[in-house]
Parts: sequence; structure tokens; C-alpha cells
Amino acid sequence: MSAGLLLVLSGPSGVGKGTICRRLIERDPTLYLSISMTTRPPRIGEKEGKDYFFVSEERFLQLIAQDELLEWARVYSYYYGTPLGPVVEARTAGRDVVLEIDVQGGFKVREKVPDSILIFILPPSLEELRARLTQRGTESGAAVEERLRWAQKELSFYRNYDYAIVNERVEDVVGKINAIRTAEKCRPRYLNLDFA
Amino acid sequence: MSAGLLLVLSGPSGVGKGTICRRLIERDPTLYLSISMTTRPPRIGEKEGKDYFFVSEERFLQLIAQDELLEWARVYSYYYGTPLGPVVEARTAGRDVVLEIDVQGGFKVREKVPDSILIFILPPSLEELRARLTQRGTESGAAVEERLRWAQKELSFYRNYDYAIVNERVEDVVGKINAIRTAEKCRPRYLNLDFA
Repeated sequence: MSAGLLLVLSGPSGVGKGTICRRLIERDPTLYLSISMTTRPPRIGEKEGKDYFFVSEERFLQLIAQDELLEWARVYSYYYGTPLGPVVEARTAGRDVVLEIDVQGGFKVREKVPDSILIFILPPSLEELRARLTQRGTESGAAVEERLRWAQKELSFYRNYDYAIVNERVEDVVGKINAIRTAEKCRPRYLNLDFA
Repeated sequence: MSAGLLLVLSGPSGVGKGTICRRLIERDPTLYLSISMTTRPPRIGEKEGKDYFFVSEERFLQLIAQDELLEWARVYSYYYGTPLGPVVEARTAGRDVVLEIDVQGGFKVREKVPDSILIFILPPSLEELRARLTQRGTESGAAVEERLRWAQKELSFYRNYDYAIVNERVEDVVGKINAIRTAEKCRPRYLNLDFA
């Protein structure tokens, strides 16, 4: 059996990464969606092992020291990261893994896992992204503009990704990601043939 | 509109390249199947512009001199090659092009067209390839064995191709090639976006 792929999904906040991931799993429940680890306390309703793995700062620092995180970042006083163990385990079992992460995180993952496949999700336009961020209604106008400025910086990196998909319709994006999975499994390194 | 892809299909004689190409076109008539050019006289039933472009040796040598061939080879006293013009024209019109060619030819095409996509079609096994060559009934046992020895040499190159597909069922191969087409169109260079 061939090892599963590591698909890294990046893109600016509000581009629809979460919805895309949910649809991918609905269409193929064998996919493993990587769960982040954090030292921030759980919010009401958040479940251990579903929303995050919640750990102490001591434990998190230990995992960094042991090189057990695919990537990590400190945001204000909390740590966030991707535990390596479950990703390796799922891939070894032949399951494709999806990892949703910001652009900087994507490049860090590629450094640790050279055969990871970086997919950038793009908004149809900046205006469309503004509309989506505003519709969420979770942030003030000023916060939306700040996110947009950041998004514009992030978007410039899409050319360094393996693939880039404009999110016009979620179903189309899911279809394209599944085509990428099929294509990447046709890479010669995934075949173990011996005609000698 | 984005330019079409140049898909180069290679693989040993008897692996089923011709059938795969026919099915690809049946499922997507917008595909352009590249036609070879030759100085060999037409056989009975062969049609100009369908089986081959039939040209004089003088014309062929002129095209070589003008760098108008994607690749060419001399087999015994005849020349065979791929005219560049129709390929460029189809791609510019946004059509994907399929080019069926032997392994050596594939590498020559890649040299001239760096963004060509090399796909190697593999038999499930050498025994299976022997069975297919024998079933054709067009060649003697000795000729089949000679083709098999040559095939074994060619097969060792599949790792240098972008993709490799084992031809167990033609429909599966066609599905995989179409997934590769979809995936390759998600390459950042195919998008012309400007978020600045």
C-alpha cells in the first residue's frame, strides 16, 4: 500500500478553507483532517481532539524540543501548532491528510515534509473577500480592513505554491482538490514497480 | 483564456496507447491528437492528415532546418516527426494536445517544450505485455521477444516521467489522465491573477 498524501490548504482568512475541508471529508471520510494543538484554554463548546488538542505550555514546549511539531507559532501569549504524530500515523495507514494552515505555516510544513502538496485557496477578488469577511459579522469594519491588508500580503505568495484554486463554487474546489489527489498518486515515486 | 496543455503519452509497444488516445478524444472532442509527419508512402487505407501528414523527404529536411519539428527520427530509410505548428496552434486556442510517442521522443519533446507533461503508460507486468503483443498476431514469436527486450529497456525510464499509470483498465487510465489535466490547470502559472 502506498503512503497517503499530505495536502496543505492555505489561503487568507475568509476564503472558505473550513467549508472546503468539511466537504472534502463528507465526500471521502477516509481523509484525515489534521487537528491543531494549543495552549489556549478551550472556549465554550470546543471539544478536545475535535477542535484542538488542548495541552499545557510545559507539554507544548517539550514537543517543540523533541521536534514533534510539524510547525508552530506563538500568537500573543498562546502557542499553536500541528502535532506530527497523528499525521505520520494516518499517512502510514494510507490515508490522505488535509492540513489547514496560514501561508507562513505552509512553507514551514514543506520544509519538514518535502513531499507535502501545497494548495493555495484564492478568493475571486479582494472585493469578494471583503464581502465574505463582512458577512461573517464577527468583526468590526476596522478589523475587516486590517484582515484585508494582511490578506493582500498573503495572496502574493500563491505563485510559490504547487497549486492555486480560485474559490468560486465550493463543489468545484473540492473536485479540483480530488483531481490533484488522483494526479499526485500517479507520480512515479508512488509506484513500486520492478520490471528488471 | 489559458493555453492548452501538451500531454505526452509514452510507453512500450503493445501497452495500449492508441486505445487510450481514442477514448480520451471520445470523452473530450476538444482534445487535439497530434498527427505525425512521415516521408514513408501511405499504406492502403491510410489518410492524409488523419493517420499521418505525408510529405517528401525534401520538405521534411526543410522543416528540420527551420526547427519546425518538435522531434523527429529516421527509421531505416524514412523520416518520422511531429510538426510543431498544429500543436502550437491548438494550444493557443486553449485546446489540450495529446502526443503519442516513444520514450526517447518524449524526452526530446520536453527539451523543446519545457512545460510539456510527460505521462508514462505501464503494463501491469511484462507477462501481460507479452500476452498483448502475441494476441495482436501481427508479429512472429521472435519479433515479439525482440519488442519485449526493448520494452524492458524503455520501462526503466518511467521514473523520469512526470506521471506513470499502470494500464489495468482503459477507463481508469482515461480517468487518471483527465485528473492530471484538471490538476495541471491548477498550477499557479496557469492563473493570471493580480491582487495588487
